[in-house]
Amino acid sequence: MSVLWSEPHHDGSPVHGPRLAAAALGDEVDVLLRVPHGGTRTSPVRSVHVRQVHDGEPAYVGARVVRTDDHDVWFSARITVHNRLARYRWLLEDEPTGPRATGTGYRWVNAAGVHGHDVTDASDFVVSTYPTAPDWAVDGVMYQVFPDRFARSGADHGPLPDWAVAADWDTTPVEHTGPDTPRQLYGGDLAGIEQHLDHLLDLGVDVLYLTPFFPAESNHRYNASSFDEVDPLLGGDPALSTLVAAAHAAGIRVMGDLTTNHTGDTHDWFLAAQADPDCEEAGYYYFHAHPDRYEAWFGIPSLPKLNYRSEALRRRIVEGPTSVAARWLEGPDGLDGWRIDVANMTGRNRDDDHNHDVARLVRRTMDAVKPGSFLLAEHFHDTSDDVTTGAGGWDAVMNYAAFTRPVWEWLAEPGSRFGFLGMPVRVPRKPTRDVVAAMRLFAAAVPWQQTLQNVNMLGSHDTPRARSVVGSDEALVAALAVLVGYPGVPMVFAGDELGLTGEDGEHARTPMPWSDASRFGTPLHRAYRELLRLRHGSETLRRGGLRWLCAGEDDMAWLRETPEERVAVVVARDASTVDLPVSLLGEPDVLWASSGASVEAGSRVVQVALPAAGAVLLRCG
Amino acid sequence: MSVLWSEPHHDGSPVHGPRLAAAALGDEVDVLLRVPHGGTRTSPVRSVHVRQVHDGEPAYVGARVVRTDDHDVWFSARITVHNRLARYRWLLEDEPTGPRATGTGYRWVNAAGVHGHDVTDASDFVVSTYPTAPDWAVDGVMYQVFPDRFARSGADHGPLPDWAVAADWDTTPVEHTGPDTPRQLYGGDLAGIEQHLDHLLDLGVDVLYLTPFFPAESNHRYNASSFDEVDPLLGGDPALSTLVAAAHAAGIRVMGDLTTNHTGDTHDWFLAAQADPDCEEAGYYYFHAHPDRYEAWFGIPSLPKLNYRSEALRRRIVEGPTSVAARWLEGPDGLDGWRIDVANMTGRNRDDDHNHDVARLVRRTMDAVKPGSFLLAEHFHDTSDDVTTGAGGWDAVMNYAAFTRPVWEWLAEPGSRFGFLGMPVRVPRKPTRDVVAAMRLFAAAVPWQQTLQNVNMLGSHDTPRARSVVGSDEALVAALAVLVGYPGVPMVFAGDELGLTGEDGEHARTPMPWSDASRFGTPLHRAYRELLRLRHGSETLRRGGLRWLCAGEDDMAWLRETPEERVAVVVARDASTVDLPVSLLGEPDVLWASSGASVEAGSRVVQVALPAAGAVLLRCG
Repeated sequence: MSVLWSEPHHDGSPVHGPRLAAAALGDEVDVLLRVPHGGTRTSPVRSVHVRQVHDGEPAYVGARVVRTDDHDVWFSARITVHNRLARYRWLLEDEPTGPRATGTGYRWVNAAGVHGHDVTDASDFVVSTYPTAPDWAVDGVMYQVFPDRFARSGADHGPLPDWAVAADWDTTPVEHTGPDTPRQLYGGDLAGIEQHLDHLLDLGVDVLYLTPFFPAESNHRYNASSFDEVDPLLGGDPALSTLVAAAHAAGIRVMGDLTTNHTGDTHDWFLAAQADPDCEEAGYYYFHAHPDRYEAWFGIPSLPKLNYRSEALRRRIVEGPTSVAARWLEGPDGLDGWRIDVANMTGRNRDDDHNHDVARLVRRTMDAVKPGSFLLAEHFHDTSDDVTTGAGGWDAVMNYAAFTRPVWEWLAEPGSRFGFLGMPVRVPRKPTRDVVAAMRLFAAAVPWQQTLQNVNMLGSHDTPRARSVVGSDEALVAALAVLVGYPGVPMVFAGDELGLTGEDGEHARTPMPWSDASRFGTPLHRAYRELLRLRHGSETLRRGGLRWLCAGEDDMAWLRETPEERVAVVVARDASTVDLPVSLLGEPDVLWASSGASVEAGSRVVQVALPAAGAVLLRCG
Repeated sequence: MSVLWSEPHHDGSPVHGPRLAAAALGDEVDVLLRVPHGGTRTSPVRSVHVRQVHDGEPAYVGARVVRTDDHDVWFSARITVHNRLARYRWLLEDEPTGPRATGTGYRWVNAAGVHGHDVTDASDFVVSTYPTAPDWAVDGVMYQVFPDRFARSGADHGPLPDWAVAADWDTTPVEHTGPDTPRQLYGGDLAGIEQHLDHLLDLGVDVLYLTPFFPAESNHRYNASSFDEVDPLLGGDPALSTLVAAAHAAGIRVMGDLTTNHTGDTHDWFLAAQADPDCEEAGYYYFHAHPDRYEAWFGIPSLPKLNYRSEALRRRIVEGPTSVAARWLEGPDGLDGWRIDVANMTGRNRDDDHNHDVARLVRRTMDAVKPGSFLLAEHFHDTSDDVTTGAGGWDAVMNYAAFTRPVWEWLAEPGSRFGFLGMPVRVPRKPTRDVVAAMRLFAAAVPWQQTLQNVNMLGSHDTPRARSVVGSDEALVAALAVLVGYPGVPMVFAGDELGLTGEDGEHARTPMPWSDASRFGTPLHRAYRELLRLRHGSETLRRGGLRWLCAGEDDMAWLRETPEERVAVVVARDASTVDLPVSLLGEPDVLWASSGASVEAGSRVVQVALPAAGAVLLRCG
């Protein structure tokens, strides 16, 4: 077992930096480091400094002891937020030990952990002076809906278009390979969603994210043919206004889905561009040879790539009050934010890289038309360039890299048949220490606040269903405990709470089984209600720090902390007994526990016994 | 001991990427990975892929076996250089092993090593399509001269200025604290350097780097009062022309030293700026309250910081043919390059960050006036933002972070009294594995080509003398073996070869002991001649790849490789016996060895026995 509670600890939360979240350029702020004393109540280190970077040059500030508790000696130092992103890490000078160590060694503490060797700045703690995401998003519980597959209102939206193949809601299997995959139309619509808002409320959801509602010649609608109207097959513009108004009345925010990287080849703009090489729209794309050779997403001709060298394109889609990004947010019944499709590739093509510019333009446009709106980027990989270097643009990412991937690696059913999010391997089942190392490393690549506002998922309409990946309802509940217990905004893909399965992204787009009563009120469904509501009601789970406690053979545990409260999260994939120190946990109360779990507080350790796929959340005294 | 030769290996050198160094945007290039087979001659992995990033999105290419040698199975894959910096790493899918590993695991190989856990892109291999540094620099042996302390010609340069305190070359101790530190003038001049070019040639040096020669009210001259002339105390403009002409005639290039971050407060520009808040020069600086409150380097009022928001400043100092950066390079007897002082802070101030812009402007200006000139940045820290993200600007950095620091940490005399390059700790003596980990991590933060063209030092005029840090002539020779054996351009601080000592940067600025014959022809001096010449004559040491072999308790070894030759470098700080595999080394010849070292080739291992502070360089069969 890796014992992590004996590591020195700092994170960007208020316990360790009371004023970090609101830091402005030039501010002086205090940061705190906790160094476990192993019961001695004296500092085990000779000195502690903070290393900051000012205008590209390190500067060191000494830290002093400000208190000692049962577990830690607390050091405090005052740093200056000298640049818009202020990087820092801790330098711990060790007491000399042993006959050869006549020189004094040191260790670094950065956001990825403790290191005896020298480290680059990549995992430094970062104070960001850029605006934070709106509270409603950071504190929200999100729910992802693929409109064709959520619910039918029964309204008549006219004849089926030529490209579509009608599918029966309850009986037609989802085709996940072959030409019909994008053509199967089950006929879900926006009014159908409106009719089921009570289901969201019952789960404790307060943010609804809709995958695209623009017209397009596919069921997924990512190949938009227009950004000017809601697809009539979904009920058109009035249905969106009515849905958003109803959601708002119920306390639910609504986010749309905009593709800034490309359009469909049937899009108004692209048709105009192909018709006339000299028209404005021709500059919106990368034509290698007009009209038929052009840059496209992954070379797929139906998805021509947008060219942000064009100022006219910028104004049309993302910049200013008449842009697409602006107009759907307008008014009280406008959207509350955007999820941006293929955000990581937007504006990037060979030697062009306008990604950060475009992100900042979208952000500025949204701030002007709807202050407090949320801008969420699709992103499957290392996000640090886009959200750290490119700070001030995307508010958050869909946190596949720092969350979904490691959780799958930990909880995947052994011998998984499923592809691993674009990698040419099956989902592995990794040693716990490797999973925790990855979670720490990826979280360390972004500011603490970013981790809080990033959106964590167990799966989405682009992945196998979480239930299929983990292999049982019980394992999905363990995954859910990680989702609600880990920092970041939980997003549920509609139907996960009902145990729906799916082998890949297309297959996961299962119609909701409204007519199958056996899917509702199950232990799984109940666990979703309980845990999402627990999360929703807990400032500690929403905003608390993250201190890793241990990474065992088949278990992991961490602590979430605010100045007012601490919550320990303990999860096991196989049956495990986890001993945690009383010096950190005190006498905890059980907030939530899997059946079969037990917690026993002794004089020195709190012993948590978990069944396979078990979890407990403990409020620590 | 950490056995590293059993790790899969790739680097950016021609052995593992024949066309990487000359890659252009859009090129397809082959990359090779070697996977040790442990004597089985069959692949120990199920599959190998390369993960590349195209426009922000990963793409995977399968690799195939192309050959097997005594040690490795070689995999090859063809990647596309899709962006100006093309990142990639290797994905090795393991054969399933053990009863629990029913899923298939994988490992990543990036430039920092092999990882069981998922990794961010920070240590990816990087193909750069930006121009490489000139061959004369990459293949050079550099020599750093602090003009006031190198040699006096005896010429009369007029009366001592008011600020100066005369010092006697052979008898006045260097003051390294107190007000006289910058005032002591020993009277070295440019003609003095010219008279000793034979000393450089004898060492195998072919690049001379001069710290500043501009007039300034200090002996270090980093607080320039003009960029328009050579300090008359050094002999003025004619002395520079004569020196450069003589150096060129001897086959030695000459680099100057320009401070782009700040000027002295006695500089023409700053005096004009203070005199008139509306003049052009007032815009060159950051005045908080004219004329007396202004931004300065580390708040030191004599070093006012330059403000690159000013287009006029850019043209005056770095942009175009009339700029300072251009004019000193002009003509056959112009300088061959610049070392830029405080490069890492240049153009950075709070929410301003013009650093990459300025670097690229200097580069473009130099390319226009003198193609093939070299632009070297002072940089003490993680350089990845400035040379990777900011590629196309600085050609190279003074490689304190990736070279000097780890070498000191490894070879420092135990119980060192010396400060550690700006850190609030003494130089430690770290475990070898930590030292090697740091060397790998920092090298992994930049493209391979960058590591080849970065300038490595054992010390400089800004640090304690290397001889003082390591504590003995023998240990300095071991350090020198690392310097010549490791990738990167070696730079010697004048006097190190004579065993000069110094406790800090100021103290290290020791006058050269020309009159002390006992300093010349010593074993130390001879080792400098031998090892620098060995390096100079070896394509393998100058351009070869870097494969780590092992990190023992007190020893380390690595292999440098070209398609034609391999050289193993084995160094020990304390007496060590190092066993290296015959499968990699064959029957090696000794290129250079410390006295007392022995090499014995058996059937399976080559055994290298080294005394404390011993080194051998082996040409491998």
